[in-house]
Amino acid sequence: MSELIFRGGTIVTVDDGRRVVAGDVAVRDGVIVAVGGTYTPAGHDYQIVDASGCVVMPGLVQAHVHTCQTLARGKADDRELLDWLHQVVWPYEGALDAAALTAAAELAMAELLLGGTTAILDMATVHHTEAVFAAAERSGIRATIGKAMMDAPDPAIPPGLRESTAASLAESDALADRWHGAADGRLRYAYAPRFVLSCTDELLAEVGRRAAARGVGIHTHASENKGEIAAVAARFGKRNLAALADLGVLGPRTGIAHCIHLDEHEIELLATTGTHVLHCPSSNLKLASGVAAIPELIDRGVAVAIGADGAPCNNNLDGFLELRLTALLHKPRVGPKAMPAAQALAVATRGGAAALGLGDQLGALEVGRRGDVIAVDVTGPHLAPVTNPLSALVYAARASDVRHVAVDGRLVVRDRELLTLDVAAVTRAAATHAHRVFAQL
Amino acid sequence: MSELIFRGGTIVTVDDGRRVVAGDVAVRDGVIVAVGGTYTPAGHDYQIVDASGCVVMPGLVQAHVHTCQTLARGKADDRELLDWLHQVVWPYEGALDAAALTAAAELAMAELLLGGTTAILDMATVHHTEAVFAAAERSGIRATIGKAMMDAPDPAIPPGLRESTAASLAESDALADRWHGAADGRLRYAYAPRFVLSCTDELLAEVGRRAAARGVGIHTHASENKGEIAAVAARFGKRNLAALADLGVLGPRTGIAHCIHLDEHEIELLATTGTHVLHCPSSNLKLASGVAAIPELIDRGVAVAIGADGAPCNNNLDGFLELRLTALLHKPRVGPKAMPAAQALAVATRGGAAALGLGDQLGALEVGRRGDVIAVDVTGPHLAPVTNPLSALVYAARASDVRHVAVDGRLVVRDRELLTLDVAAVTRAAATHAHRVFAQL
Repeated sequence: MSELIFRGGTIVTVDDGRRVVAGDVAVRDGVIVAVGGTYTPAGHDYQIVDASGCVVMPGLVQAHVHTCQTLARGKADDRELLDWLHQVVWPYEGALDAAALTAAAELAMAELLLGGTTAILDMATVHHTEAVFAAAERSGIRATIGKAMMDAPDPAIPPGLRESTAASLAESDALADRWHGAADGRLRYAYAPRFVLSCTDELLAEVGRRAAARGVGIHTHASENKGEIAAVAARFGKRNLAALADLGVLGPRTGIAHCIHLDEHEIELLATTGTHVLHCPSSNLKLASGVAAIPELIDRGVAVAIGADGAPCNNNLDGFLELRLTALLHKPRVGPKAMPAAQALAVATRGGAAALGLGDQLGALEVGRRGDVIAVDVTGPHLAPVTNPLSALVYAARASDVRHVAVDGRLVVRDRELLTLDVAAVTRAAATHAHRVFAQL
Repeated sequence: MSELIFRGGTIVTVDDGRRVVAGDVAVRDGVIVAVGGTYTPAGHDYQIVDASGCVVMPGLVQAHVHTCQTLARGKADDRELLDWLHQVVWPYEGALDAAALTAAAELAMAELLLGGTTAILDMATVHHTEAVFAAAERSGIRATIGKAMMDAPDPAIPPGLRESTAASLAESDALADRWHGAADGRLRYAYAPRFVLSCTDELLAEVGRRAAARGVGIHTHASENKGEIAAVAARFGKRNLAALADLGVLGPRTGIAHCIHLDEHEIELLATTGTHVLHCPSSNLKLASGVAAIPELIDRGVAVAIGADGAPCNNNLDGFLELRLTALLHKPRVGPKAMPAAQALAVATRGGAAALGLGDQLGALEVGRRGDVIAVDVTGPHLAPVTNPLSALVYAARASDVRHVAVDGRLVVRDRELLTLDVAAVTRAAATHAHRVFAQL
C-alpha cells in the first residue's frame, strides 16, 4: 500500500456537484481515497506534497495531440491544412526513425506533464509507434495512442508513410495486442485512421469492426478544412461525417478532431451516436481552418473535449492555453455567457476523460477515481487577487503555474521539476534529431 | 557613466532590416550603444547579465491597459461591455481610494514587467491618478498615463466618478504639468477621455486642442461594441470615429482602443490622420465584442499596436498572450499567411512605440534607441527545438520565459525576480484592498 497526499490546497473537484472544498487530496495505490479535510495516512508508505497556495484539480486531458510531430515545431508556420500536410508534416513524419520519434514523443510528454496535462489521446505516425508507447511508459503520462493509418493510393503521401490496407490493420492490431492495458492500464490503444482522404473505405469499415470487437477507441480527424470537405464530397458524394457514419466509424468510443464545418445532418449524427468532438482552438486558428461551433454543439448534446493538436500547428502543447481559448473564442459569436469558466474546465477534464472512454475513472477528484491530480500555484501576481478559483484557472492561469502533477497516484512533477525524464537531455536530443531529420528533407 | 550588458544571446533586433544577430546588447546611460558581437565595457561601472540560451529583444509595448482595474480580476466575467462597465467596473473604480489604486497599479506593473512588457499606455480612473504615476515611478516601468475623463451627465456613471468638464480638464492639466517628462522622461502624460459616450463634446474638443498645444497624446476607446455604436449614432447622427474626427481628436498622437466595428469612412479617417488602433484581442473575445480587422487595417496603412486592456476583461496583462493571439486570431478570416510572426512581433514592439509617440526611441534594438530590453529564455521544452526565433517568440513563448528586463537601461527583472517591488507584499496588499473595495459595493 502506497499513498500520495496533496496537502492543504483549494480543491476544485469538477465532480457532479462541482464542489470546491479545502484540504487534502489523498491517493492510495492509484485510487483517490479522500477529497477535502485533513487526511491521516493509513500506513507508513506515504508521500506528502505541499499544496498550500495551490488549486488542486483533476489533471487536464488533451484528447487530440500528435506527440510525433514535436520536432517540427516552428517548421510549418503560415500554411493551411493541406499545404501544411503535403509540404512539411508528411515528409517530416516519413523521415522519422524510431530514435527521432522517441525524441519527439519525450519532448512532447515533458511539456505536457510539466504543464498539467496528465492524459492524452495521441495519434502517432505510420511506423515506429512502439517508440511512442515506450516514451509514454517512461514519462509516466496516461496515454491512449494509435498508429496513423494511411492506406489510400494518394500520391501526396510520401513513400515512408505509404502502407497497404492489410499491413495497416496488422500493424495496428499488433500494437493493440502489445500495449492496450499496459503499465497497469495507463497505456491504451485507439485505432487511428488519419482522415477520410488518406484511408480506403475498406480500411475505415474494418477499423469500425475491429475497434468494436476489441472495445477500444477510434481517433481520427474530420471537417477541418473546406478543401478537405470538397475532396470528400467529390469521392463519396456526401459529407465527411455521413461517410464515416456509413462506414461504421462513429460512436461513443470514437473521437474526431476539429469538426469545424458541419451541416445539420452531421451535428445530428454526432449527437445521436455519442461521438466525441475534439476541439483544437489554437490549431484551428493557426491553420486558418475556422472556429468550431463548440457551445452550439454542446447545446445539441454533442460530447466535447479539447487538445493542442501538434507542435507545428499550435505551436505549444499547453492545456491551459487551449482551455483559455476554448472559453474565450466562442463569445463573440454566441455571447459573453458562452463557455463560462466552469463549463470550459469541465470540457478540459471530464470531457477529455469521456473521450478516452474513461469518463468514470478520470476527469474529477472524487473517491474511487484514478489519482490523476495536479496542483496549480495561484500565488503569482498575474492571478491575484484570487476570489474565484475557476475564473483564475480558466482565464488567468498558465502552464508554468503547475507545481505538482500525479498520474495514477504516482508523482511525476514535483515543485515544477519532471521526475521521470531528464528535461535538459530530452531538449538537447530533440534539437539533434530535428536537425538530422530536416537535413534529409 | 553606467553600462548594462546583456551577454551572449540571440538578438532579435526588430530593426528596419529585421536583423537577427548573435552577441551582446549594451546600454550606456539609458541608450543602446552596441547590438551584436562581444562588447567591452567602456568604464568600470557596468553590470553584465547572462543572456545565453535567451532571445534578446525590445521590450513588449502594451498600448492599452488599465492598471487601475487589476483588483477586479475575476470579478466581472461573462458580461458584454456596457453591462461590464455599469455593473462592475465603474462602481469598482468609483470606490477606489489612493491606497487601493496604488495596490492595483503595483500589482499590474509587477505582472507587466515580469512578463516582459517594458512600456504601457495606461488609462487610469477618474481620480487619484498621482498614485498610478507614483507606482510607475517606483516599479521602473515606462508609462504614459492619463486620468480617465468622464464629464457626461450619464446616470450610469457612479457618484465617485462624476466630474464637471472644467474639473476634468483642470485635473488632467495639473497631472500633465506634474508628470509629463518625469523620471528622466520615462513617465509621460496622455489625455484620456474614456469614450465618446462618457464625455461631452466640449470636453473632447478641448482635449484635442490642449493635447496639440502641449504635444502630448490622447488615449481613448471607440467602436468596441454595437450597443455603444448605436448610442453614439443616436447622439451624433454619425459614427464614432467621424464624431471624434469632427471634434479634433484623431491624429498621430492619438491611440484608440478596439476599433472593431468600422465602416469604410472610419478606416479612411484612421489611415489619413495617422491615428493608432490599439488592438486588444483577449479583451475583445472575452467581452464578446468581436474581432478587429487588424491585417486589413494594416494593409490600408493604419498604425496598429496591442494591449491586454484590464485584468477584469482578459484576465491577464500578458503581452506574450496578446502577441500570440494577434498572430493567430485573424488567420481564419484572412488566410494562414495573415499576421506572420515577424509582423505580429513588430506590432507588439515598434507599433506600440509609435502609439506612445516614441517610434524613434523604442521598439527596436538599435544603437541610439533607449535601452528597453528583455531576455527571453528559449531553453524550455515547450519551445524546443528553436530553429526560428521569431516563430518561437510569437507562437510558443510564455510570459514566464522572460528572464531579464531592463527599462531605460536599468535592470528591473533579473533571473525572473522583480528588483523594484516586493512581489509577495504587492500581491498580499492587492488581496487586502480588493476585499475592502468590494465589501463597500
